[in-house]
Amino acid sequence: MSEESRFERWVVLLAGGIGSRFWPASTPRRPKQFLPLATNHPLIVDTVERARALTDASRVLIVAGEQLRLELESHLPELGRDQLLLEPQARGTAPALAWAASEIIARAEQPDRAVMVSLNTDHVIRPLEDFVSTLDIAIAAAGDAGRLLTLGIQPVRPETGYGYIEVGDPLTPGVFEVRRFVEKPDEDTATDYLRQGGFLWNSGMFVWRPQVLLAELDAHTPELSGKLESLARGDVADFFAGVPALSVDHGLMERSPNVAVVEAGFEWDDVGAWAALLRVRESDAQGNLLTGDAHAVDCQDSLIWAEDGPVVAYGASGLVIVRASGITFVAPRERALELKQLLAELPEDLRSGDD
Amino acid sequence: MSEESRFERWVVLLAGGIGSRFWPASTPRRPKQFLPLATNHPLIVDTVERARALTDASRVLIVAGEQLRLELESHLPELGRDQLLLEPQARGTAPALAWAASEIIARAEQPDRAVMVSLNTDHVIRPLEDFVSTLDIAIAAAGDAGRLLTLGIQPVRPETGYGYIEVGDPLTPGVFEVRRFVEKPDEDTATDYLRQGGFLWNSGMFVWRPQVLLAELDAHTPELSGKLESLARGDVADFFAGVPALSVDHGLMERSPNVAVVEAGFEWDDVGAWAALLRVRESDAQGNLLTGDAHAVDCQDSLIWAEDGPVVAYGASGLVIVRASGITFVAPRERALELKQLLAELPEDLRSGDD
Repeated sequence: MSEESRFERWVVLLAGGIGSRFWPASTPRRPKQFLPLATNHPLIVDTVERARALTDASRVLIVAGEQLRLELESHLPELGRDQLLLEPQARGTAPALAWAASEIIARAEQPDRAVMVSLNTDHVIRPLEDFVSTLDIAIAAAGDAGRLLTLGIQPVRPETGYGYIEVGDPLTPGVFEVRRFVEKPDEDTATDYLRQGGFLWNSGMFVWRPQVLLAELDAHTPELSGKLESLARGDVADFFAGVPALSVDHGLMERSPNVAVVEAGFEWDDVGAWAALLRVRESDAQGNLLTGDAHAVDCQDSLIWAEDGPVVAYGASGLVIVRASGITFVAPRERALELKQLLAELPEDLRSGDD
Repeated sequence: MSEESRFERWVVLLAGGIGSRFWPASTPRRPKQFLPLATNHPLIVDTVERARALTDASRVLIVAGEQLRLELESHLPELGRDQLLLEPQARGTAPALAWAASEIIARAEQPDRAVMVSLNTDHVIRPLEDFVSTLDIAIAAAGDAGRLLTLGIQPVRPETGYGYIEVGDPLTPGVFEVRRFVEKPDEDTATDYLRQGGFLWNSGMFVWRPQVLLAELDAHTPELSGKLESLARGDVADFFAGVPALSVDHGLMERSPNVAVVEAGFEWDDVGAWAALLRVRESDAQGNLLTGDAHAVDCQDSLIWAEDGPVVAYGASGLVIVRASGITFVAPRERALELKQLLAELPEDLRSGDD
């Protein structure tokens, strides 16, 4: 029996996010996953394509905020409306995944054989075949052993922006115990992790049986356990109204003894800021990355994103220049890493763009 | 008899220029003199205001290319259509001023008492009262002595972008012989001029009797002399078709023994490039100059000209950022000094803007 047929595969795509990291191209109404950052298609379209390599399109669910409905429908016309799970309130990943799990149990042909893969919609992952083979391992492990599987990425730089997973003993080929989850480290610690090995980046991608997720939440997550019964009744509004904001990392993965990690065999990047585009897209001989109506004369190591009108840079070095959502934004690359601080100082109409 | 009444004062405003220095705000159809660089009004409006402090508005003539007609009419509705001298071809300042002189002779109530002041329309001059008192001296000297007067500016920095005038013996108070005209010097030479004194910047502003100008051109400027008779006949098209491009500096001032210089008592700046705006307009405590919908967070010494949409700069230092004519332009201040080289590398639609 092939892996494909042993389990009924469902993929849940988490499409939250407030759109600050790629401002002004990203806005609350068009967060990062709707931007064509990795290819000529929005990241979420690339993600759905990956999901369809794992399962049938009818078994893909997207969890997102109501404000993204039109954007989702326009980019993903092939998905049915009932495949969009629009949250009454944003409450973080734990409530979102609990809801998705209960929907899968309700919709599955054979709920006992269902396995649920949770992916973010704003990451870059390639190549596809390595993604599929990693997920085959994770799905088998989650389905057979009933564990909460998380995908860990082999670090390639001393990144201080991610959480890490310290890997424990092997369980089955490619699957390991989790010794501990580590919060975002400082640079010295991240350098140590990279040098000594045995640490993986916590990617935020998970695989589990939906029934196992709900049982584990019931056992380890008192913030939600009292309201899971609302979900079972199908009263989603009541569920969201009654639960706090909580991530599945803090609320469950760090508490349960039943977690394991699969080491991913693919290249992964969360493209967390404008400057990260220079990692995931090919730049020209001068180190410039030009998109849209962008013109660079005598420039080096600069990113120009010209989405709604021409941009001309002359003699620029190490700049990020973005023209999108009716706004022009200019910053040195190193200052474009974290835009929340900037956005806090801008008037509301500039934060949200004109689109 | 007051100075005002001894001579019939006419002011000629030269409004040529191809609009490259303040690109993309300036374009061939909206060159620099139509930008509000010094005040909230276009430089040419400021210039007409200065001209009206010298004479009646009806004695102001503007020489410009046909392509600027609409722009001129919209900014200067108080001028009659016959006050716009629209050149059939751009041929430089010598033919333009010859035409203006012949028009003044034809239109003046008392041509023998007419004195003509030629001003550029894209310079910053202040304060007004010092401008008027300098011109009173120049008009009297040009009218009485029948000389070709040029206005010289006391240098305040070792500028290599201007021509210089070496000052000779005094003729009358404030008026001096010209020892020689000097082409744009290198930096060492300019520094010497500044240190040793006796050199003035050649401002390109002139005062003379229109009849004297035409007689001097007839005597010293063979490139034009054969065609002056077309002007006398009123056949402007024939005149422009028959003369080469020639500046009045090279074609006459450097050749005639009858020139003199008046040392200007006012502050003057030709605002030759974006970075020069930081000289003529007041910047904020961080050295930034923001115009229009410009927002600078944690920036220093940067110029943001946000004319057709918001611009946000974050952590920028020493940048020029312009959003105008549908185009966004970014360059370090020192690279924004000379844009001709850049424009030569851009496609035509970007050179001319969308306005």
